[in-house]
Amino acid sequence: MSEVILTLNAGSTSLKFSLFAAGPDGVDPTALADGEADGLGDAPHLKISAASGGIDTALESGNYEAVLARVLDWIETHDSGMTLIGAGHRIVHGGPEFAAPVRLSKAITRKLAALNPLAPLHQPHNLVPVRVLSASHPHLPQVACFDTGFHASNAPLSTRYAIPREMHDAGIRRYGFHGLSYEYIASTLPEYLGAKANGRVVVAHLGGGASMCAIREGRSVASSMGFSAIDGLVMATRSGAIDPGVLLYLMSERGMDETALSDLLYRRSGLLGVSGISGDMRTLLASPSPEAREAVDLFIYRIRRELGSLVAALGGLDALIFTGGIGEHAAPVREGVCAGAQWLGIRLDETANQTDGPRISDGDSAVPVFVIPTNEDLMIARHTLHVLRPAVVGRARQ
Amino acid sequence: MSEVILTLNAGSTSLKFSLFAAGPDGVDPTALADGEADGLGDAPHLKISAASGGIDTALESGNYEAVLARVLDWIETHDSGMTLIGAGHRIVHGGPEFAAPVRLSKAITRKLAALNPLAPLHQPHNLVPVRVLSASHPHLPQVACFDTGFHASNAPLSTRYAIPREMHDAGIRRYGFHGLSYEYIASTLPEYLGAKANGRVVVAHLGGGASMCAIREGRSVASSMGFSAIDGLVMATRSGAIDPGVLLYLMSERGMDETALSDLLYRRSGLLGVSGISGDMRTLLASPSPEAREAVDLFIYRIRRELGSLVAALGGLDALIFTGGIGEHAAPVREGVCAGAQWLGIRLDETANQTDGPRISDGDSAVPVFVIPTNEDLMIARHTLHVLRPAVVGRARQ
Repeated sequence: MSEVILTLNAGSTSLKFSLFAAGPDGVDPTALADGEADGLGDAPHLKISAASGGIDTALESGNYEAVLARVLDWIETHDSGMTLIGAGHRIVHGGPEFAAPVRLSKAITRKLAALNPLAPLHQPHNLVPVRVLSASHPHLPQVACFDTGFHASNAPLSTRYAIPREMHDAGIRRYGFHGLSYEYIASTLPEYLGAKANGRVVVAHLGGGASMCAIREGRSVASSMGFSAIDGLVMATRSGAIDPGVLLYLMSERGMDETALSDLLYRRSGLLGVSGISGDMRTLLASPSPEAREAVDLFIYRIRRELGSLVAALGGLDALIFTGGIGEHAAPVREGVCAGAQWLGIRLDETANQTDGPRISDGDSAVPVFVIPTNEDLMIARHTLHVLRPAVVGRARQ
Repeated sequence: MSEVILTLNAGSTSLKFSLFAAGPDGVDPTALADGEADGLGDAPHLKISAASGGIDTALESGNYEAVLARVLDWIETHDSGMTLIGAGHRIVHGGPEFAAPVRLSKAITRKLAALNPLAPLHQPHNLVPVRVLSASHPHLPQVACFDTGFHASNAPLSTRYAIPREMHDAGIRRYGFHGLSYEYIASTLPEYLGAKANGRVVVAHLGGGASMCAIREGRSVASSMGFSAIDGLVMATRSGAIDPGVLLYLMSERGMDETALSDLLYRRSGLLGVSGISGDMRTLLASPSPEAREAVDLFIYRIRRELGSLVAALGGLDALIFTGGIGEHAAPVREGVCAGAQWLGIRLDETANQTDGPRISDGDSAVPVFVIPTNEDLMIARHTLHVLRPAVVGRARQ
């Protein structure tokens, strides 16, 4: 009989999840299955992939209760040898109080819900399955893992905006996100970099959301995202960094309110806004349109600039890592970034880059460059096990 | 008898001006006098300094008409040998249409007034003396010199935000400011750098407003200010770069509107907001308060990060220049920036830094660092003469 951990990553219309077997002490959890329910609220669909046989089916109801009940039913009936011992949730925001993963109580869940205004498009959705599971499985331990947590090691200066002190003290500061991805990547660095794993590393997590993180001795020093998940790099539909004066102008000259500005900066900007075609990098790379090319070029240009800024935060660079859907699969994007990073001593191995690495720098490169697939679900499973069995499990890779 | 040029730099409650003698063809104009009227609208005061004797007096009226009349009266009566041949204005914003200095007509002045929403705190004030002089001296040629103009050479990618194409095409893009200062500094580089003057140079213009500019072959490549004069570095009372999500949060959670946000980001943030004490760097450097120290440290930290970003835009660095009130006089700020730039090969000469240079890097520094006093007024005088006498004057230094 094997003990299993369910990891959950809930969005506004989708729920992604994975199932891990909790191995013996000191050994990483093993992935057993993963799945996604999407079209929630509209045309719900559930797909579970597992070596031992999955499912792929339309659902009658797209509410979270029904979807989660169906997933748990699958776990409980699919293999009589599996015992669910805990659920780990990806929670986008821990606010100023929560950095380390924490076992959820009703009181803590309420505190996390109070952070909804800090991440209005993510936090409320992240918390829905917490409440659903609490009601349906009141004795199942649940653990919150925060996307902000890994950046708690940032120096105070790199978290501060130049706004009145009262606002900073009230929590208006830089947090950074994609922390579970960066923490996972940091845990793999010794395997790829050897002794340099403790050096100065920049990781570019490039996907629909995109950010970069400066890591030294395995800890986050600074990142491109700040208070919200809008700041920093160009994303699929998010603007990334933009002059606050633009918002003031749109308010005074176009009468845009918070709802309109939020819609603009979260959903109508980024690759989609610049290209006018799509927010999907694959579509843009395949397009002959000059507007698509311009969107891709801007995406790359801003990564190059942010790389310089993060190298300054580190005082130099020992390695550059690409991860995330675009980082792992879009060779032309990596090529563009590396072409603009020759001043840092980076030299691309074009053949290795075409086949997604893992090492994509050539032998003459002063700074090694790797493509490393991220695994946020495994990071959540590790954290969840560590919280449930604090004495012995969860430090295997770190 | 000497022909003279009046340069004007008008703010909301102050008017700064200088008087230059137009030398023979090919020779730089010579400064004869400079002055400032401040407290306009409240307790107006006029001071003019000149080798041949100035004035220092309270004014009965603080309106622009009266102040300008007084200045022109001084010019016309002070020395019977001076003939005013033109006035040059510092105009903060040329918009997408105007980059090169231009002789003002009523039609052009109207076009510039239409740009007021792009720089609501500067542009309307800049244009007041244009109208006053047009009325009082209708035959005096007036020339507009734009703070955005020098950045017209920026590559398209460095001017674009990742917002819908329609908005970019409507002028919502990065412009950059302090262009007259950067252009002046660029014109002096051969004197300080020799052959490297055509290389990759970052200039930090640090004053009450602060920005940085990446210059290659004497032309602007990128700068830290964007659409407005808020973005980029920490300033006396302006926030510099800030996550747009902070504005959305302040709108939804604190009910702040455009007026309140504009007041926050232009007047209550920056060094003043972080320290809670003052927006004046001299006051903060002299203060024993930890909050003052934190404001100074954040000012320096953000310059270090921006330096990395601009070096990435240039693909390397051949020289670093400090200018502006803080850049020219605040040795501890320069020391902090250079200490964080050792990864670029910069080594400070501490003694030279204490005495404000001009060269403040030591002999081992791979990248020379200079303090160069800026002179925006001279740049305006050069441009004005060049517009008035296009065939022969104004290229002496370039």
